[in-house]
Amino acid sequence: MKTEHSNHVVIGAGSGGITVAIGLANLGKRVALIESLHVGGDCTNVGCVPSKTLIHLAKKYRPGDDVNQVLAEVTRKRNQLRDKETTEMQHYPNIDFIQGHARFNNPKELEVTVPDGDKRLISADHIVIATGARPRLLDIPGLPEERTLTNESLFDISQLPRHLVIMGAGIIAVEMAFAFQKLGSRVTLIALDEHVLPTYPPEVAEAMQPELEKRGINVHLKATSDHYEEESKTLFARRQDELFPIQDVDQVLIAIGRVRNIDQLDLEKAGIAYDRNGIQVDGFGRTNVKGVYAIGDVTPTSAFTHSANAQGRRVVQKILFPYLPASKKEPLFPTSTYSDPEIATVGLTRKQIEEKCHPNLIMHLRFDLKDLDRGYTDDIQNGFILVDVVRLTGTILGATIVAPHASEMISFFTLAINQRISMYKLYRQVYPYPTFSNGIQKIADAFMRETLPNMLREIKTYLRYRIS
Amino acid sequence: MKTEHSNHVVIGAGSGGITVAIGLANLGKRVALIESLHVGGDCTNVGCVPSKTLIHLAKKYRPGDDVNQVLAEVTRKRNQLRDKETTEMQHYPNIDFIQGHARFNNPKELEVTVPDGDKRLISADHIVIATGARPRLLDIPGLPEERTLTNESLFDISQLPRHLVIMGAGIIAVEMAFAFQKLGSRVTLIALDEHVLPTYPPEVAEAMQPELEKRGINVHLKATSDHYEEESKTLFARRQDELFPIQDVDQVLIAIGRVRNIDQLDLEKAGIAYDRNGIQVDGFGRTNVKGVYAIGDVTPTSAFTHSANAQGRRVVQKILFPYLPASKKEPLFPTSTYSDPEIATVGLTRKQIEEKCHPNLIMHLRFDLKDLDRGYTDDIQNGFILVDVVRLTGTILGATIVAPHASEMISFFTLAINQRISMYKLYRQVYPYPTFSNGIQKIADAFMRETLPNMLREIKTYLRYRIS
Repeated sequence: MKTEHSNHVVIGAGSGGITVAIGLANLGKRVALIESLHVGGDCTNVGCVPSKTLIHLAKKYRPGDDVNQVLAEVTRKRNQLRDKETTEMQHYPNIDFIQGHARFNNPKELEVTVPDGDKRLISADHIVIATGARPRLLDIPGLPEERTLTNESLFDISQLPRHLVIMGAGIIAVEMAFAFQKLGSRVTLIALDEHVLPTYPPEVAEAMQPELEKRGINVHLKATSDHYEEESKTLFARRQDELFPIQDVDQVLIAIGRVRNIDQLDLEKAGIAYDRNGIQVDGFGRTNVKGVYAIGDVTPTSAFTHSANAQGRRVVQKILFPYLPASKKEPLFPTSTYSDPEIATVGLTRKQIEEKCHPNLIMHLRFDLKDLDRGYTDDIQNGFILVDVVRLTGTILGATIVAPHASEMISFFTLAINQRISMYKLYRQVYPYPTFSNGIQKIADAFMRETLPNMLREIKTYLRYRIS
Repeated sequence: MKTEHSNHVVIGAGSGGITVAIGLANLGKRVALIESLHVGGDCTNVGCVPSKTLIHLAKKYRPGDDVNQVLAEVTRKRNQLRDKETTEMQHYPNIDFIQGHARFNNPKELEVTVPDGDKRLISADHIVIATGARPRLLDIPGLPEERTLTNESLFDISQLPRHLVIMGAGIIAVEMAFAFQKLGSRVTLIALDEHVLPTYPPEVAEAMQPELEKRGINVHLKATSDHYEEESKTLFARRQDELFPIQDVDQVLIAIGRVRNIDQLDLEKAGIAYDRNGIQVDGFGRTNVKGVYAIGDVTPTSAFTHSANAQGRRVVQKILFPYLPASKKEPLFPTSTYSDPEIATVGLTRKQIEEKCHPNLIMHLRFDLKDLDRGYTDDIQNGFILVDVVRLTGTILGATIVAPHASEMISFFTLAINQRISMYKLYRQVYPYPTFSNGIQKIADAFMRETLPNMLREIKTYLRYRIS
């Protein structure tokens, strides 16, 4: 077999991979882009795009509208974007699009199996791994395949489940619970976790749990599935030794987590280091093997489209301008969850703050949106802005927002943290009334009320715990 | 008549006045707070609070729901908040609440007419004028009083107008047009302006005009009312010499502008300077008369609750800590309009930029939301982020956003402008996907694409026009 050579190869045409391929191609470099399934990866095909279309249409949906038309529209829009992106990648100047599955032969060579089974050998100076992740599966004895959904099949359904059970209580699970409830499904969540949305601070679950409940979404925590009985359409769930039936279950969406797509890459043949958190990379996506990079879901730090894109941009920069100065640290990756209300975070997590600072050095600030005028006009029961700041200096370490449009509010805090803008400066800013962002003003007020009259105490606290 | 003395008097218990009264009272100062009508001023009674309640309920409203219940709920919530705020002001420690109408006798003395007609004389060291504004009226011959509405009567109606004509095309007019259309009213806008929302840059009207039209809202520009014919319920409008009939008109909302409440204050007796733009003040709300301040709608620079509040905070600071250093300039006041999509701006207007800089020094950046993935999933036709920046340096001068949640997005730009954060830094930030805030990333990309490859040209341009 003849070995073809390409200066740059990207494995995986999802958000991250496309960012790298286009970035290199636009600057005149030839790139081979290898994709085993669909261009657009999870985001376009089975993630953000169809889920946000569904969430958008569900918000507008009213009883009496044709719900199956909503589902068909989600599939149609997804397919349309997929087709557009596929054509784009097939014809993009400087990009050689290859449909196929790639494995490493050695650090500089890939074996690509194309759809007809043939194999191609491709060698490259720079290889970027962007193969993403797939849903973690869960075996439920007795559950027929046609009743089993993951995010990979969810957006192809043509009929609304009357009763959708969602296994899991993470971001995908909660987003889909709200959306399907709005479309008229009965929705039940079952999760092993102690509370919903376990990756967020516990205040988030405290706010979201009543929001799920008031919409009639049943949540069974510290529980899992046991088996399914087709005749009675009953899912038997289990909490410790206790079995309990969940009746009239049409479909079960498995959303218990993600598995990185690194097991079919033969990373060992190239000596690329990885562990249970993914492929080990530095702040520029460089693996332990020179010339091999990894971005997106396969890495430990990225689980979002925007973080994969950001990693991709940094890889492009490092490949093309290796000596250009750049921060060794990855930029801040915000998170956002498109539930109702939305959830967004940025900065250090509670755990990271605890590891870094003495608890006495931190001021936890919280403002509940119901105490805002906009909370009053819009009848908000649950929602807040949480900010963790360093005492005295007012440096912001992390922020969490639960609010109707939290995902549009969080970039304010990304900017404030990135640019080290203290609470004193946020205090002097004017926020439009009556917005939920007004809560930032209230948070800044609270910081000033706590700090100014107790300046001496704050200085002492700061000096004492600063370097502990 | 005996003259009572109060160290601090605030005339007007609207947003601005309450901010000052509470600010002073909380720091132990005694304040007389004089209000001629309702505590809460325009915002609570006839502005933000009832209008945002209406807008919120209109968004949730579906044909078949009881629309009069929606209107009743708006009135109920307004009254409830008014009662709460009234009780609060009547019992607030250090605040003497006086129901009455105040006029100046001289720079240090006010005559207050209380509801029973009695008069009180109150002298004070510090007097803050916060009397707000009222709707500008328009005489439409033949239009009965019961068919005439302003924002002062709009939130007391108990029946939905079948056909609401709105005179004007400013913020209030456009907000109410969207809200009443959603509730099922036929809505017609008539305005003398060349385009809707004339205080915003023209791109805003270009985006909002089709949004009004697609909802069936008729817009007649460069036109005004001529007369109303009760028998046929016809409003005759006029464009130049041409009369045209608008049929089946139930109610006419006059929203053609605002008049400052300064004509009944006897400002002349105190020698307080004002002109057609309002009471002249410096950046701390100080009038030409020592000890007399003005904030909110009566001043030239503030037309929003948040700007009145911000001015109020600065007055409190200046009264209590006159020697504390503070910026002489007022902070940036963002604007926001709660239409669908929303509109928000911050920073210098186009006109202010033109006055300040040579046009060649400015880069106009625009990104249309329909070209974002979120624009695709949410089916956005009109909407954008506009940013005017200084070439080369990337310093942001002003931003305008038309987007579903623009009012929550604008504080990002307030912060960026306040802290002089350049486009280079916005470029390095990660924005959550798929949000409308992703457009900020695209704007920053566009700046980099325009700047980096043309660095020499950009430097020349900057050096040439910088000081012109």
